[in-house]
Amino acid sequence: MKALVYHGPGEKAWEEVPDPVIRDTTDAIVRIESTTICGTDLHILKGDTPEVEAGRILGHEAVGTVEAVGAGVTSIRPGDRVLVSCISACARCEYCREGHQGQCTGGGGWIFGYMIDGTQAEYVRVPFADTSTYRVPEGVADEEILMLADILPTGYEVGVLNGRVAPGQTVAVVGAGPVGLAAITGARLYTPSHVIAIDLADTRLTAAAEFGADLTVNNGREDAKAFVQSVTGGRGADVAIEAVGVPETFELCTSLVRPGGKVANIGVHGKPTTLHLESLWIRDITVTTGLVDATSTATLLRLVESHQINAARFVTHKFALSDILTAYDVFGRAADTGAIKVMMTR
Amino acid sequence: MKALVYHGPGEKAWEEVPDPVIRDTTDAIVRIESTTICGTDLHILKGDTPEVEAGRILGHEAVGTVEAVGAGVTSIRPGDRVLVSCISACARCEYCREGHQGQCTGGGGWIFGYMIDGTQAEYVRVPFADTSTYRVPEGVADEEILMLADILPTGYEVGVLNGRVAPGQTVAVVGAGPVGLAAITGARLYTPSHVIAIDLADTRLTAAAEFGADLTVNNGREDAKAFVQSVTGGRGADVAIEAVGVPETFELCTSLVRPGGKVANIGVHGKPTTLHLESLWIRDITVTTGLVDATSTATLLRLVESHQINAARFVTHKFALSDILTAYDVFGRAADTGAIKVMMTR
Amino acid sequence: MKALVYHGPGEKAWEEVPDPVIRDTTDAIVRIESTTICGTDLHILKGDTPEVEAGRILGHEAVGTVEAVGAGVTSIRPGDRVLVSCISACARCEYCREGHQGQCTGGGGWIFGYMIDGTQAEYVRVPFADTSTYRVPEGVADEEILMLADILPTGYEVGVLNGRVAPGQTVAVVGAGPVGLAAITGARLYTPSHVIAIDLADTRLTAAAEFGADLTVNNGREDAKAFVQSVTGGRGADVAIEAVGVPETFELCTSLVRPGGKVANIGVHGKPTTLHLESLWIRDITVTTGLVDATSTATLLRLVESHQINAARFVTHKFALSDILTAYDVFGRAADTGAIKVMMTR
Amino acid sequence: MKALVYHGPGEKAWEEVPDPVIRDTTDAIVRIESTTICGTDLHILKGDTPEVEAGRILGHEAVGTVEAVGAGVTSIRPGDRVLVSCISACARCEYCREGHQGQCTGGGGWIFGYMIDGTQAEYVRVPFADTSTYRVPEGVADEEILMLADILPTGYEVGVLNGRVAPGQTVAVVGAGPVGLAAITGARLYTPSHVIAIDLADTRLTAAAEFGADLTVNNGREDAKAFVQSVTGGRGADVAIEAVGVPETFELCTSLVRPGGKVANIGVHGKPTTLHLESLWIRDITVTTGLVDATSTATLLRLVESHQINAARFVTHKFALSDILTAYDVFGRAADTGAIKVMMTR
Repeated sequence: MKALVYHGPGEKAWEEVPDPVIRDTTDAIVRIESTTICGTDLHILKGDTPEVEAGRILGHEAVGTVEAVGAGVTSIRPGDRVLVSCISACARCEYCREGHQGQCTGGGGWIFGYMIDGTQAEYVRVPFADTSTYRVPEGVADEEILMLADILPTGYEVGVLNGRVAPGQTVAVVGAGPVGLAAITGARLYTPSHVIAIDLADTRLTAAAEFGADLTVNNGREDAKAFVQSVTGGRGADVAIEAVGVPETFELCTSLVRPGGKVANIGVHGKPTTLHLESLWIRDITVTTGLVDATSTATLLRLVESHQINAARFVTHKFALSDILTAYDVFGRAADTGAIKVMMTR
Repeated sequence: MKALVYHGPGEKAWEEVPDPVIRDTTDAIVRIESTTICGTDLHILKGDTPEVEAGRILGHEAVGTVEAVGAGVTSIRPGDRVLVSCISACARCEYCREGHQGQCTGGGGWIFGYMIDGTQAEYVRVPFADTSTYRVPEGVADEEILMLADILPTGYEVGVLNGRVAPGQTVAVVGAGPVGLAAITGARLYTPSHVIAIDLADTRLTAAAEFGADLTVNNGREDAKAFVQSVTGGRGADVAIEAVGVPETFELCTSLVRPGGKVANIGVHGKPTTLHLESLWIRDITVTTGLVDATSTATLLRLVESHQINAARFVTHKFALSDILTAYDVFGRAADTGAIKVMMTR
Repeated sequence: MKALVYHGPGEKAWEEVPDPVIRDTTDAIVRIESTTICGTDLHILKGDTPEVEAGRILGHEAVGTVEAVGAGVTSIRPGDRVLVSCISACARCEYCREGHQGQCTGGGGWIFGYMIDGTQAEYVRVPFADTSTYRVPEGVADEEILMLADILPTGYEVGVLNGRVAPGQTVAVVGAGPVGLAAITGARLYTPSHVIAIDLADTRLTAAAEFGADLTVNNGREDAKAFVQSVTGGRGADVAIEAVGVPETFELCTSLVRPGGKVANIGVHGKPTTLHLESLWIRDITVTTGLVDATSTATLLRLVESHQINAARFVTHKFALSDILTAYDVFGRAADTGAIKVMMTR
Repeated sequence: MKALVYHGPGEKAWEEVPDPVIRDTTDAIVRIESTTICGTDLHILKGDTPEVEAGRILGHEAVGTVEAVGAGVTSIRPGDRVLVSCISACARCEYCREGHQGQCTGGGGWIFGYMIDGTQAEYVRVPFADTSTYRVPEGVADEEILMLADILPTGYEVGVLNGRVAPGQTVAVVGAGPVGLAAITGARLYTPSHVIAIDLADTRLTAAAEFGADLTVNNGREDAKAFVQSVTGGRGADVAIEAVGVPETFELCTSLVRPGGKVANIGVHGKPTTLHLESLWIRDITVTTGLVDATSTATLLRLVESHQINAARFVTHKFALSDILTAYDVFGRAADTGAIKVMMTR
């Protein structure tokens, strides 16, 4: 088959590789019909994650059709159309049992396109297929569902649920890239009074407004903290969601929230940050971090099916799977191309 | 009356001052029968909190008898024996209404011995008396109840409840001073599998064992992280409670917890700390901070009354109220005197 | 002043009565600008609540202006425009402190138009005014806010919050009268996949659809249980909200929910009902009951202010306060007049 | 092998049957080392559950050693000593994924000794072995662990967790049979102020006191409601746990709780009960029902291992497995024999 293979920092190719085969009884082989590119794939290509071996097929998001299943797979079968989640869940380790599938110690967690071959290919081997895939409801198109592989549950679980967003609150989302937009989408499910998007790029703030932010701030030009204070009558945001991954934006988040507020970090950080405990110790702040567990996937599927979430809106550009190198180029130059998410279809 | 008056950094005196009087209709005047000294009082005396004015009567913990009440006070009356909480709650601002009385914006919060005259005196004016005092049950001695003014609700709410301690967990308490011992006492209410006390002083670890820590580590001599890992089969603590207030112990706490774990900060910090988001972003960690709200006081009173908590155990030294300068000396040299809490009685 | 006075079963009059005066230091006198009629008022007039004394002024919902305050009132003052909540909260009893203000044992709870004179008058005495009124934000009209005195917090707290409605769920609301419509409004804040309204009257189902029910069932003609089963793929509703108050509808609710589902009772019941424990014992069902506590009022005010809730929509008919007898007639014949809520304005 | 076989109402035999074999890839075969008898087994033998076929091997609780595993089993292997839970969990259906394993729709739930052959035998086939067994820690004896197969998680999850028992509360447990004693054991983990056991038999109340009830009431002789009122200063219990399964005890529970209280039903009911909504609708009551999910098993194992729960205390009589008919006789005449739980060992 053909696949997008990582060949070390800066090097990738769409090339012929052996077809995947069932290795464990809990595996399935899925024929990829749609896949996408994540910011993490760009990080891997830059060499930021040296633990990824050359030769690895990238990608951790897909919709496809089950081609074959191992002897231990009981809930899906060949011909089923499924969402392949970015999180593989063994379902038997203590972390999986307590709902922290992203922390799976039984061989799962985030492994696609990282520890094992991924979904940017014509076929993929899916470990723990029973508990790592979701049947796609009839009549729901790939592009409505593909974002449920990673970005939407990430924004929802790590941003919105960890931040305990509730009706009537003021939610600040710092960073209006794809994950920030997913957090805005998720926050709107709880009817906050205000969702304030904060970013340095006006184009991203325009997208944020389309995705549900009723207020936007360009913190290159404006004082985001003063803005949030003025919106909230001097109180501060109830929840601040960090969707960038640098110390400055994290510190900004901790300065935006009111006493009793929550800071939900989604950003992937490469450096330590400063936590201003000299002022925060007394303010009843909660800071959370997290990798997605995909425990919300069934809920999100129902919301897509009942048209409560418009997940297709994330897809700004579509390509043939074989055109994936162009797709990488367009996604990699998002500032110029306006790409939010790209979709590659078989 | 006589009172312990702060006269600027390093200066204090037990001296004659005017009796307090009712100023607002919601005030009560309470005749102090027992009071104690908090580590915070020592900080104020060192000059660490320049906002405290010279002339201030110190102290924010007391048991006493109601002497007079303002026209708006309805639930206590002269002659009632009451616990005076360190937190004054206006009960009408949004923070009080949501259970964050420590953040009261209606004139309450932590104000005794800080913004207004405190409890190390023969009498004290108690604002918002209806919602800032608790009637002491019949037959419960002062020393069983005095610790409910601050230290026990602080350890319980900010350490145990924020850390969401649950049966079967492993709880690490870093710092075995009075507040750490209160956190250990509170944690035991939820029957964790293990409470591990970590401190640099063997005497404090001995006290920790008496208060309910089944395991102790002197982290001057031993590697606390390795110890916690070995106790938990390599997993890490479910909850780490910070009860010191310096960057090193906070960072230690974030290194002790397992994926999905909680770090509950109680310590009063004077400096920023480093949050290692480069490793923590993916580990589903929750960090909380907080000032006590005293929302647990009624619960703790019931636990004392039903002999489920031995609160008298904190009191290692007793003095006459007029001997308060000696009491300060003994409490200030806790490392030598073995003092946990001192009690001064009228 | 003029007031609507109950004179025993079936008897009421709009008549001259003495002006209310401040009795306790925590009282306020509020000049009524808008008030409304509740189904409960009709019950009292029928004689269903013999504990209500003849001579009582009815009504427990109002928007008005503070005329005078007692010496213990600190957070509102003459001239403030306020919402008068149906729940008076002493804020100092154990129930108030734990957020069960509807169960207040300190002299509050639901008392207006029941134990003390109510709001269908030109003035009303409001006990515990600091914690039983809410300042109305600038620029918000009476009709946008009046429903926050009772019906909206009742539907939201007792129906939606007790039922723990969450995104993606299927919520069945049995009874589409005013309180059922409030529950539908509240449920939509959590973005369920489906809100199914069930009623015997098509006119009420039409209203339910306007208020946010995406599916409606006339259970006089259709099998509601079969309908819910078909919508949910045989699973059952996640939450069923009872908003009628008779045994049949309560039993219907317990038959509609899936294993693990919630039945939130809002209806005022006059008779016992049957609980089918012979089948329910094994199904992980939660049944809740409750009187409103008004703890959500601040949240609902923010949602109205940010145009997330259209509360004015409940008001189908408007009258002068002096025309209250006509208003009672129109509201009492809701089936004919199509009245949901009537509003009387000074 | 030998097994205890049900041959229709009133008929059972310890007889030779074929050894179980692996049927599905997710199965394990476990050699039984210890098993016990549940009240449910007596019900089946009485013919109360006609869905149980003649020829069925009874029993749903065991400790044993893995003999063989199917191709899809990855987390246990032959030679492992395991607890066999009464709940089989497919881990892939929506109920399992949301923590309602007792409601498993993927072929699990409570099936042992009911829908499939059970554990009162020399060997048992365990479906979904990865997610339905628990490795027994080193050094923990069978009798310390056997009660974790059913009775302890049932009392803890369905009684204590559903009832949301918390420190300082008053908990009434109605019925002091084995499950009631398990609920008392579980309640004590949360340090309530009082656990009040209520039963008609003094011998059971004596056992309740040994298991942690600090107060007991024989409601054949005393007025249980008056007793609870007097203990709580007229307020009522915070939580009432029903552990009998008849209408009278359920109704008693709803009369014991305070406004805002919880009634957690554990009892297996054969008849409908009356729910007094005419008084309860206004009292903020929560009623829960449930079958155990065994989600607490890992927690309970840790508590046994750390000696926080004395689970061996339930075992009043021990027998050889081959003496199981005698064991049934002793357990069936518990009132005479004083049996709480009997244990049969290979």
